[in-house]
Amino acid sequence: MQANQIDLLVYHIGQLVTMQGKKGPRKGHEMSEISMVENGAVAIANGRIIAAGEEKDVRRKISGLSVREELNAQGRLVTPGLIDPHTHLVHAGSREHELELKLKGVSYLEILAMGGGILSTVRATRNATEDELYEKARKSLDLMLLFGATTVEAKSGYGLNLENELKQLRVAKRLNEHHPVEIVSTFMGAHAVPPEYKGRSSEYVDLIVEEMLPEVKRQGLAEFCDVFCEQGEFTVQEARKILSAAKEMGFGIKIHADEIEPLGGAQLAGELGCISAEHLLAATDEGLDAMKRAGVIAVCLPATSFNLRANNHARARKMIEMGLPVALSTDYNPGSSPTESLQFVMTLGCLNLGMTPEEVITAMTINAAYAIGRGDVVGSLETGKQADLVIYNASNLAYLPYHFGINHVDTVIKKGKVVVSEGKLVG
Amino acid sequence: MQANQIDLLVYHIGQLVTMQGKKGPRKGHEMSEISMVENGAVAIANGRIIAAGEEKDVRRKISGLSVREELNAQGRLVTPGLIDPHTHLVHAGSREHELELKLKGVSYLEILAMGGGILSTVRATRNATEDELYEKARKSLDLMLLFGATTVEAKSGYGLNLENELKQLRVAKRLNEHHPVEIVSTFMGAHAVPPEYKGRSSEYVDLIVEEMLPEVKRQGLAEFCDVFCEQGEFTVQEARKILSAAKEMGFGIKIHADEIEPLGGAQLAGELGCISAEHLLAATDEGLDAMKRAGVIAVCLPATSFNLRANNHARARKMIEMGLPVALSTDYNPGSSPTESLQFVMTLGCLNLGMTPEEVITAMTINAAYAIGRGDVVGSLETGKQADLVIYNASNLAYLPYHFGINHVDTVIKKGKVVVSEGKLVG
Ligand SMILES: [Zn+2]
Ligand SMILES: [Zn+2]
Repeated sequence: MQANQIDLLVYHIGQLVTMQGKKGPRKGHEMSEISMVENGAVAIANGRIIAAGEEKDVRRKISGLSVREELNAQGRLVTPGLIDPHTHLVHAGSREHELELKLKGVSYLEILAMGGGILSTVRATRNATEDELYEKARKSLDLMLLFGATTVEAKSGYGLNLENELKQLRVAKRLNEHHPVEIVSTFMGAHAVPPEYKGRSSEYVDLIVEEMLPEVKRQGLAEFCDVFCEQGEFTVQEARKILSAAKEMGFGIKIHADEIEPLGGAQLAGELGCISAEHLLAATDEGLDAMKRAGVIAVCLPATSFNLRANNHARARKMIEMGLPVALSTDYNPGSSPTESLQFVMTLGCLNLGMTPEEVITAMTINAAYAIGRGDVVGSLETGKQADLVIYNASNLAYLPYHFGINHVDTVIKKGKVVVSEGKLVG
Repeated sequence: MQANQIDLLVYHIGQLVTMQGKKGPRKGHEMSEISMVENGAVAIANGRIIAAGEEKDVRRKISGLSVREELNAQGRLVTPGLIDPHTHLVHAGSREHELELKLKGVSYLEILAMGGGILSTVRATRNATEDELYEKARKSLDLMLLFGATTVEAKSGYGLNLENELKQLRVAKRLNEHHPVEIVSTFMGAHAVPPEYKGRSSEYVDLIVEEMLPEVKRQGLAEFCDVFCEQGEFTVQEARKILSAAKEMGFGIKIHADEIEPLGGAQLAGELGCISAEHLLAATDEGLDAMKRAGVIAVCLPATSFNLRANNHARARKMIEMGLPVALSTDYNPGSSPTESLQFVMTLGCLNLGMTPEEVITAMTINAAYAIGRGDVVGSLETGKQADLVIYNASNLAYLPYHFGINHVDTVIKKGKVVVSEGKLVG
């Protein structure tokens, strides 16, 4: 990476987490190796990193080049921009009334029978205009950015027919074009069986495979395909059919696997070579072994189990100890995880999954990047990568999960530009 | 309440939670009666409420008076200013390194033996200057205000000798004089046995009773006295001695009771007529009965049990069903609950304590006010009370605990003045 001048030099960084090191997702003890330096600096030109490391080394490396702008980090913590590899960003409506029903002891199935649950979001999303969806998602994306996310995966899956799935995906595309946060788009027509196909899920699977996937591909609206493989949603056989077809068409593939019942979604992820498998609370040892053999990244979603008051959590410690790469995500959605804050997920990663702060930041940067096919571009502060970084009002990494429920972000830099300053959106 | 003109009229309130109704803390089904009106307005003069209720009624009531300033709530939710009735606001240092030790399986007692735990905060607080303590507490108080708190209780208890307890209390007094948030001050010399009295707790209790309490009283630095009654801290007998003496001297009395072991702190709260008892995770039915008979308010602290990864929670549902008034609080402190966000406590109140959004807001407004002796002044939007209120970026109450991990506050009005606007501190 060569540059004629430095556009931005971030210096006097108290703790600089670079995540420099081997290529590829980090597993086992590698998840603790975050390449942290004290007295750090990051030099940026043309939106890319020219040098990141100890300030004296960085200054030596860029000596002779003019520096257009300097930013004093005042001894604070800097990490790569956070990456949220699993969200249901684009949707209409909210479901706070279900909280009250839930607290009154009404079961999920009863709520569904009352027209609530995911199908109420499907109804609202189908009825919303593209602009309405855009405006709501933009607000959430602003929040994600304010909490430190610079790249976010976004799934469709509340349209459940071609027209409305495309509508959701077009909103994600527009957001990617106009919002500082980069969006990685996933088609998830198999998020639920739509009401009009009730009892005829195999017909809906055919529709996905024969009409929806090819059209999404043709329009270039999604990079990945995801399936909700769960009792009452899509079986392992149906997931295999959809994901095999998607893989054939050139999509990367993902799977919501073994969240509640150990159906074998994790095994399927291994069998098909999914880039990631999500949730995994009920995944068996065999399932995790299959994932490991195939290099599938485990995306854990502790905000969802927190919000669902689950008694169990994804076995992140077991995953790390057996050498699976683990990523973390908000699972932002209006039903099971209405939160945009990756910082809150940091706290849950520590308290509820037993991960260390080092493992947590690895799971939200480099591993999350690889979980959405961006490992070569973002997720670490290395020469040549995109200059996405966050300055926190904190002097050390452990302070982020420790001091919970608030926002520690002071500054966010995306592609070399300051997009959040003093905790506020710029421009 | 009469006024010659209206200083501020907040109108077009979509949901206005007034908490109007009976005097006194709310218990049982009363905790669900939040006196919510739609299309509401609040008229304010001289920092006090002239009228609050349906907009047409409010406008009729103030017709003929000039209105200096109008604030359009744009159909959003308004509640009384939130009240945090239990914090350890003033202290030095932070303890994020203990998170890492905890995750590595180091026990609390081992951490204490390494000089960590509460004694590390005591050391840091003793070593800090009054200005350093002020500056750190001010930042936390800013955050509390940004999250909607307008009145906050603050305990001493990290000085553990006369000089340093007075230092903490003077900081609280200064904050009360200079910060928009009102502080209610509690002396808690009996937070822990200081290292220099190790094994001689009865001598330290004598010091509290004979020297510290009288001097705090003489200087008028605290309204309440609190004791940490717990295995390894202060026994029921010691707590009785301290709190009886404090009561005698004219302090209101509070007790950290039955957090881990059912020592009988709740019974003692009933016996002595404490204004509130805190934590109560292990309180027995007999203890709760004693509290009920004496009118003690139960202050539940779900952020603490969340952060300590406790398997059990305070039995808030049982308390409400038996007719105890329940309040909620952050328990903000650097060890067991490093969070300033009462909004996050709302979510925990629902998810972990099983309270409804209505019960939660009651617990953070009128009941919290009574728990710190301010029930006549704040905690509800009623004619004559202080004009402390919050406008949220939300259209309904349930949305606050539902959409978790973020800050919903748009505007905070304290004593009739806008002190937070668009989520930012004013001035
Ligand atoms: Zn999902
Ligand atoms: Zn406490």
